[in-house]
Amino acid sequence: MATLYGVGVGPGDPDLLTLKAARLLALVPVIAYPANPQGFSLALSIAAPHINPQAVHISMTMAFTVDRSSAHAAYDHGAAEIAEQLERGHDVAVLCEGDPMLFGSFAYVLDRLPAAATVEIIPGISSLTACAAVAGRPLALGNEPLVCLPGTLDAAALDAALTGVAAVAVFKVGRHLPTVAAALARAGLAKDAVCVIRAGQPEQKILSLPQALAEGLPYFAMILARRPTS
Amino acid sequence: MATLYGVGVGPGDPDLLTLKAARLLALVPVIAYPANPQGFSLALSIAAPHINPQAVHISMTMAFTVDRSSAHAAYDHGAAEIAEQLERGHDVAVLCEGDPMLFGSFAYVLDRLPAAATVEIIPGISSLTACAAVAGRPLALGNEPLVCLPGTLDAAALDAALTGVAAVAVFKVGRHLPTVAAALARAGLAKDAVCVIRAGQPEQKILSLPQALAEGLPYFAMILARRPTS
Repeated sequence: MATLYGVGVGPGDPDLLTLKAARLLALVPVIAYPANPQGFSLALSIAAPHINPQAVHISMTMAFTVDRSSAHAAYDHGAAEIAEQLERGHDVAVLCEGDPMLFGSFAYVLDRLPAAATVEIIPGISSLTACAAVAGRPLALGNEPLVCLPGTLDAAALDAALTGVAAVAVFKVGRHLPTVAAALARAGLAKDAVCVIRAGQPEQKILSLPQALAEGLPYFAMILARRPTS
Repeated sequence: MATLYGVGVGPGDPDLLTLKAARLLALVPVIAYPANPQGFSLALSIAAPHINPQAVHISMTMAFTVDRSSAHAAYDHGAAEIAEQLERGHDVAVLCEGDPMLFGSFAYVLDRLPAAATVEIIPGISSLTACAAVAGRPLALGNEPLVCLPGTLDAAALDAALTGVAAVAVFKVGRHLPTVAAALARAGLAKDAVCVIRAGQPEQKILSLPQALAEGLPYFAMILARRPTS
């Protein structure tokens, strides 16, 4: 069997790929990626300048909705195509926005592959560190615990996760902004919170929490907050 | 004034630099980095293949001890040299192991620079995602909160931070291993915990928690654990 590569392509800027990822993508004969029903793949658009022009494409088309049945079917189908390529001796690179192991979808592909497959993960710049870079703010310093939370948690889960926390990064805030902002306020973390939208992409934007509440946030938005040290 | 770049050089493998960092380091006229009293700098050794051979070097020599006075003096001195170079119109790149904003020392340099300095951060592959890649394990999936903890916390702080947590990454474990391992056990997170030593460096190694307790861990070791989902 050939090798399956899980390749982090970073948050948006094609220059934020690693040298290792860029070299691999220039050579690998098969690439796979998630795409929306209109055929657009953010991971593919980020990596496009680096991809072997002869590569075979496996597009895992799915609706990005709360109901995950479309996604599960796409992963089932994609994993079967990937397994077939690996069995034929062709290495396959699965493109992952950000990093493959941090709130990524790569695990869903991995779970569906034959246990015999050789897997190599190439880490990518995650939105976590990309957003901190854009905001010019340390995520955590010294002895501070940092909590990374999906914005999809409900109010009670957010409250539990934010209790006594020194620093927090909330991923994929989008339409959950009012719930997230209220939980940050209850935890005393709202004051200096900053919202980073599409870090490293041309539409990149930074908003304060009040600005974000007025304008709303897209899915690819992160909130960073730290408790003022006394 | 010229621009100060905070450049994440990743966890160890020079191929895990981003294209952006590699291009910048090939051109920038001044580089700065922390070094130990013997003159060795891990950040410099990682980035070395990419650095402009004519670059002026600013080495911030410090003892890596609990007493931080040597480090503070080195940052004071380094920041003064960096400010002088910026005022002369020379861009300066500060090399940071992993990512500049995640438990890094870059914030200590930044705090000491004139407010007028233009700063640009180039994110790097953090040990967080590098260790998960090496271990072949997702850090967090779906709705799971992920807690990133410095291994230097005491038992009570570890217990507080681990309560009800789905997934955890403990940084810089080193000699704190017995305290950290006991806290993971109390939190029900010890069973499948994995220790990754020097991810992406030639000495890279993966140990179970019992193996690590028998052998000990160096400073650059991370423990990853997830609560089994029921």
